[in-house]
Amino acid sequence: MKASQFFISTLKEAPADAEVVSHKLMTRAGLIKKLGAGIYNYMPLGLRVIRKVEAIVREEMNRAGAVELTMPVVQPAELWQETGRFDKMGPELLRIQDRHGRDFVVQPTSEEVITDIARQELKSYKQLPKNFYQIQTKFRDERRPRFGLMRGREFIMKDAYSFDRDQAAAKASYQVMAQAYRRIFDRFGLTYRAVAADSGAIGGDLSEEFQVIAATGEDAIVYCPQSDYAANMEKAEALAPVGPRGAATQPQTKTATPGKSTCADVAELLGVPLSITVKSLVLATDETNEAGEIVKTQVWLLLLRGDHDMNEIKAGKVPGLAGFRFATLGEIEEHFGCKPGYLGPIGLKKPLKIVADREVALMADWICGANEVDFHITGVNWGRDLPEPDMVADLRNVVAGDRSPDGKGELAIERGIEVGHVFYLGTKYSQGMNATFLGDDGKPAFFEMGCYGIGVTRLPAAAIEQNHDERGIIWPDAIAPFTVVVCPVGMDRSEAVKATAEQLYADLLAAGVDVILDDRGERPGAMFADWELIGVPHRVTIGDKSLKEGVVEYQHRRDAAATKVAVADILAHVKGRMVV
Amino acid sequence: MKASQFFISTLKEAPADAEVVSHKLMTRAGLIKKLGAGIYNYMPLGLRVIRKVEAIVREEMNRAGAVELTMPVVQPAELWQETGRFDKMGPELLRIQDRHGRDFVVQPTSEEVITDIARQELKSYKQLPKNFYQIQTKFRDERRPRFGLMRGREFIMKDAYSFDRDQAAAKASYQVMAQAYRRIFDRFGLTYRAVAADSGAIGGDLSEEFQVIAATGEDAIVYCPQSDYAANMEKAEALAPVGPRGAATQPQTKTATPGKSTCADVAELLGVPLSITVKSLVLATDETNEAGEIVKTQVWLLLLRGDHDMNEIKAGKVPGLAGFRFATLGEIEEHFGCKPGYLGPIGLKKPLKIVADREVALMADWICGANEVDFHITGVNWGRDLPEPDMVADLRNVVAGDRSPDGKGELAIERGIEVGHVFYLGTKYSQGMNATFLGDDGKPAFFEMGCYGIGVTRLPAAAIEQNHDERGIIWPDAIAPFTVVVCPVGMDRSEAVKATAEQLYADLLAAGVDVILDDRGERPGAMFADWELIGVPHRVTIGDKSLKEGVVEYQHRRDAAATKVAVADILAHVKGRMVV
Repeated sequence: MKASQFFISTLKEAPADAEVVSHKLMTRAGLIKKLGAGIYNYMPLGLRVIRKVEAIVREEMNRAGAVELTMPVVQPAELWQETGRFDKMGPELLRIQDRHGRDFVVQPTSEEVITDIARQELKSYKQLPKNFYQIQTKFRDERRPRFGLMRGREFIMKDAYSFDRDQAAAKASYQVMAQAYRRIFDRFGLTYRAVAADSGAIGGDLSEEFQVIAATGEDAIVYCPQSDYAANMEKAEALAPVGPRGAATQPQTKTATPGKSTCADVAELLGVPLSITVKSLVLATDETNEAGEIVKTQVWLLLLRGDHDMNEIKAGKVPGLAGFRFATLGEIEEHFGCKPGYLGPIGLKKPLKIVADREVALMADWICGANEVDFHITGVNWGRDLPEPDMVADLRNVVAGDRSPDGKGELAIERGIEVGHVFYLGTKYSQGMNATFLGDDGKPAFFEMGCYGIGVTRLPAAAIEQNHDERGIIWPDAIAPFTVVVCPVGMDRSEAVKATAEQLYADLLAAGVDVILDDRGERPGAMFADWELIGVPHRVTIGDKSLKEGVVEYQHRRDAAATKVAVADILAHVKGRMVV
Repeated sequence: MKASQFFISTLKEAPADAEVVSHKLMTRAGLIKKLGAGIYNYMPLGLRVIRKVEAIVREEMNRAGAVELTMPVVQPAELWQETGRFDKMGPELLRIQDRHGRDFVVQPTSEEVITDIARQELKSYKQLPKNFYQIQTKFRDERRPRFGLMRGREFIMKDAYSFDRDQAAAKASYQVMAQAYRRIFDRFGLTYRAVAADSGAIGGDLSEEFQVIAATGEDAIVYCPQSDYAANMEKAEALAPVGPRGAATQPQTKTATPGKSTCADVAELLGVPLSITVKSLVLATDETNEAGEIVKTQVWLLLLRGDHDMNEIKAGKVPGLAGFRFATLGEIEEHFGCKPGYLGPIGLKKPLKIVADREVALMADWICGANEVDFHITGVNWGRDLPEPDMVADLRNVVAGDRSPDGKGELAIERGIEVGHVFYLGTKYSQGMNATFLGDDGKPAFFEMGCYGIGVTRLPAAAIEQNHDERGIIWPDAIAPFTVVVCPVGMDRSEAVKATAEQLYADLLAAGVDVILDDRGERPGAMFADWELIGVPHRVTIGDKSLKEGVVEYQHRRDAAATKVAVADILAHVKGRMVV
């Protein structure tokens, strides 16, 4: 490609609404152009990156035996009503009515449609396993779209769906996909981690996220540097501390803590470590009848160390706590006779279920609220001051330094951007849509399903969060809009420069290299700044002066300085630096 | 590709709602699968065809210097309000509200968005010409979607938009696109015709449709077999007959024609040719004030030969008739004192403007209504019985045998399916959206634009309408889902068959041929029926018996019978039959 035939449009300033570096750089480099909130034009340079991401995904999906098809962007509501998602999903599901007043959605994913295809097309176990995928436009009406392509409303996703005859086969299909994802992310040239993720109501361990490591990532990733353990924060288990519980050494003492309604304030006031305070979180679960009316409410008190954060996924897995909500102020007053900020498990007005985090269950001489405004209790001890908790569970987010669940070291935490997810679905959708096939016993059985996503338009943003400097983007070769840029200086003044540039351009093209020749006639400073901003990894500069010495200059985007290379050697040199 | 790794799903019966052969065959061959009215899944085989169409379009658009980008499927209404199309377009524009109640559309085309990009990005004449294109999902909420992909609601279109500094440059850009389209349609391997089309209010001759010739086509195409003249029916000019007008030979006679209210009935009753009758069409034009209220109405009488059809596009181009409507019964009574069926230009109650078709203007001794129910007048002659018409114009559709407008022969008419359109837009959108660039005189000027569409998902349907037989589809090589199918018979019973099939498959793959090996183990009859239905153009059958004679069988989808080819020669034979 010659730049004069292409479209390069860089900006000095990032848009005012760009909060993260990838959004700033993608806009400044002219990769994307905002059309509306969370809605972007993919400009020519950006589209090239997206197409390269798609091509790698497609190749590896095909290699893994998945078959590509496309499902419509605009989908009739009927199938979504069949699974109940048309009503259950929030306003992030974009609903439309057509000219006849019929309901439609703009697809956010396609479980319903693919299950509908499967129940019509896959009649027999002999047709299984089957894995269908599409690379298609999706829409999620985010309440607050932001961060450019990172959390847009319209985006491109690769979504795959596997259909199997039984759990064992479904798990094998899942593993095939997990392996394909590793190859895909390896090929992207990014630093990433596959982390165990929560698999929701389905249980089991067949849920992994593929996280691109970046300090600016929204997700906390937990891993053990001494082993291959890795999980996201929702999933990572906090092991029970090594017991036994310490003996009580302090008397239970009601202590004035005027205005100190947080554990941190109390610890500071009393001059004690935050880790001996205990926070009280009040939850509730409602039992409903068939009409959806609440017939019974159970209130719960969860106790966590003051320096720990509750993990809502884990809390929801405590028996009885599925679908919990936070208690109302009325419910809190009713059970504690006190407002939040000074709550504790001692002296309750009305009984409730107490769940202690594993850490709290083994604490001695701890501090909690006194159920009286401006008072806490110090020196609290299980057994002596209050009964043992009703339940002990892992309720908290792990912190750096916690023991790894595999027993092989200590946990570390880093930030990541989720760009892929493999997930074993079980029979959730096949049962919901009565999607069956005939088994080898001649009886109908529900498909065992898995689903597998990659955020095609999010990936470039994640790549930039991981790979940039103050001058701009630094693309990995595999997904760079161009792999090599040839920059002639003074092409219009020097026949030698022009001829050498054109020859190198032709040689690179002939060698199958994705090269762009900058023939725009820009001044060197502006030209270099453009390409550093755009982030093309390999640059060859051809100038009249160096050409007289028989050399040109090569500089990788990560190199501190250019290297002089003999004209005769430059093609081999560039190819030698390329990551194939 | 091996069929066992792919997805083949053919049907014996076409769906009940399939009216045209392409819809029937695409469904039966498993290329598409209906999800809702006018909304289809592109199944694996169908998607392969679509991708090949896209690839050819992309290559030729790039070669022609156009630059690819992508504009969102869901677009904010603001730009559409800026041009007024948000309100002006009918319900075929799918309108959405997001969770915040803001208006959006699902793009049917993207003139507004690309013009918005241009007015921001193209600041100077130095950046021109520029041509941007996308291959993207579109939606038109057709009132009555039908014919499968031929008139769907969701579809894929390639739309390109050129931006130029002046008319001359815009016309050059238009010609570059028209040439690119010829290359594209040549490469598809279809019989097509580029026909002049009406260019609407913009005028000029810069509008051409690319029509795939098919007996089932919705459009009538006019062409001259003796020259390169071709136009669609709306556009094709009916030349004035060679004069002079014949002399009057009959007296004007009021003739009873009880109950005969059509020209055909009258001609039959009187035993005269239909071509000497004249039909009266009554139109009206309204003049409105700024408030949109009608301040004046002009009624028009158009006279056409009884055997000719009015061309509404041509009528609308008669000076004063732009935006005409058909007259109301009241207006007809007011001017003619008679109801429709017996109208004529003689003895009007109130004057109106009379426009005669070129043919009618030169007729003598003709027949028209008497403005009295159950009566016509015969022997009517201009000048003698009524004044010369106010205007003479080309008002009719041409018919086969008319003289070609280029004077080089007689017109013929065939049917076509419109799959592409190149169109000079002028400054319609750039003025509507105040999209300017700085000219070389330092002054802002409106972009001269063109737009260029190809119906990517309609093209395969048109290809099938043109290329099929009673057994199924016959794909041109360029857009076949697979170019070659290797059909081993009894692969599971014969090692020789298996080995030969695998070897030929590997050889074809190595030669870069898009081949599928049917390793499904189907019986020969079912296997052949599948591939004839699917329409893969080249088939090699490998059987144990012929293999013992050292031969395999080659059959092109259009061949009446198979040809025996030595195993050693089959690769060369297949390649020799392929259209590269």
